[in-house]
Amino acid sequence: MTERHPVTVVGLGAMGQEIARVLLEAGHPVTVWNRTPSRADDLVARGATRADTVANAVTSSPLVLVCVLDYAATRELLEPVAADLAGRTVVQLTTGTPRQARELAVWAAGHGIDYVDSGMMATPPMIGTETSVFLYSGDETAFQRYRPALDLLGASRWFGADAGLASLYDLALLAGMYTMSAGFLHGAAMVGTAGVSAAEFAESAGDWLRAVSGSLPYAAAFVDSGDYTTDVQSVDFNKAALDAIVQASVDQGVAPDLVAPIRELLARQQDEGHGKESYDRIIESIRPEVTRRA
Amino acid sequence: MTERHPVTVVGLGAMGQEIARVLLEAGHPVTVWNRTPSRADDLVARGATRADTVANAVTSSPLVLVCVLDYAATRELLEPVAADLAGRTVVQLTTGTPRQARELAVWAAGHGIDYVDSGMMATPPMIGTETSVFLYSGDETAFQRYRPALDLLGASRWFGADAGLASLYDLALLAGMYTMSAGFLHGAAMVGTAGVSAAEFAESAGDWLRAVSGSLPYAAAFVDSGDYTTDVQSVDFNKAALDAIVQASVDQGVAPDLVAPIRELLARQQDEGHGKESYDRIIESIRPEVTRRA
Repeated sequence: MTERHPVTVVGLGAMGQEIARVLLEAGHPVTVWNRTPSRADDLVARGATRADTVANAVTSSPLVLVCVLDYAATRELLEPVAADLAGRTVVQLTTGTPRQARELAVWAAGHGIDYVDSGMMATPPMIGTETSVFLYSGDETAFQRYRPALDLLGASRWFGADAGLASLYDLALLAGMYTMSAGFLHGAAMVGTAGVSAAEFAESAGDWLRAVSGSLPYAAAFVDSGDYTTDVQSVDFNKAALDAIVQASVDQGVAPDLVAPIRELLARQQDEGHGKESYDRIIESIRPEVTRRA
Repeated sequence: MTERHPVTVVGLGAMGQEIARVLLEAGHPVTVWNRTPSRADDLVARGATRADTVANAVTSSPLVLVCVLDYAATRELLEPVAADLAGRTVVQLTTGTPRQARELAVWAAGHGIDYVDSGMMATPPMIGTETSVFLYSGDETAFQRYRPALDLLGASRWFGADAGLASLYDLALLAGMYTMSAGFLHGAAMVGTAGVSAAEFAESAGDWLRAVSGSLPYAAAFVDSGDYTTDVQSVDFNKAALDAIVQASVDQGVAPDLVAPIRELLARQQDEGHGKESYDRIIESIRPEVTRRA
């Protein structure tokens, strides 16, 4: 196989378009399909082939990348062409749950389709740059076979044969992104009551969050060791800070929906007698009981 | 006044000790007081003077920095020495709410005390380094008079005559830090169910969060303009992602306390007919009604 084997991209949202563009620029013959065909116009101008049916799209390449809204849409598109996909590799880029990935892997195996699930840690402009990371799990032979093409999209990380692992890791990272973003919006709402613009706040919040992100490895050390002994960042100390954040929010008319749950988890740790231990102990209140530390 | 005027530090927790040390090293005569006197031992060995009473501490310097647990502890210490503080400047470094800062400013004004409130955006090891930022509001004349000493602690930012502004900004940034940290712990709990260590996750989460922190100015532009028109990061799209995060968490036995509120705010925006607009519109569900966009 040459490195410039054909690739089919099903679904041309913002991500699918960028992916097809990067593959085209690297010299891969690219066939595209989208429910609204006009979304392929720009790619066709760059040399892509527009397929008029999903069946024609998937039979044009040994590697089929799927980037649609969700797993339900994926199954609706792929189930009618299962026989056409036999012997080919499907890489599912759509965001879903580990359970959905595992179910799709079982369906694919039943039709002789090599299945790789992926999580894309990138925004559309990041595709093909060094900041883009793609997570993969499922059929390792298929992944390794097409890895040179996949590496064009971003740094590839392999997680294992359980098709759900890439999705699990993907959603865990997304959880961090959404909570950070929501926390920024909460803070912007707070300072907005004093006439500070969100743009001004974004600048200092960005610097601040990048600075304190350096402390994540210290938090991880508490979690991995199960030893939450600390002199400084205790549950009690941080509970007082969360009390102030919630109270100040309410005083300024900002609803505390996004910060109150952190206070509640800290209060639970206090109630369980862990006030002098590290803040990071709140993970013990959310992780599965079988993995909790007493 | 020389730049090396005396300074008094009341409260020698981890932050107070670092602050006193930085001032001493810059050549300021430093007087310290702490409820447990032995916490001053190291500073005395470096040249600080240990005061045996709060009254002796505050009368030793024209500038008194207070760094104790909370505003209640501050008032308990300062109210008995109000007459001694008249004509001096108090800089309150303790974390509290804007309301508490404003109340303390009113009390100080009633006793002829110049009052400056501060929020410290730093951990103890950051004090005196270029990563440390101190926020100030209140009496601007007093702030400018002592700014050379305050600049030793970190980059100084002035917010205005309302003593509550530094605290408001402080708590808004802290809200961002706590939500980011809580989101990391949620993600660590998720991948922990697949045997991934928190240390391993911290590395990729740190890289990821620093990368996506670059998008905060784009979020701010939506918020400031009130125009949430978007092609890519819609409420509908992100609601589906939050559904997946919550479902995957529950499937893996991880309690969704820290991520479910974001989904709820997105659901509320959908219910109000804003599904096609930007994700960042969730701020409209938490900010005060008078500042909301329809």
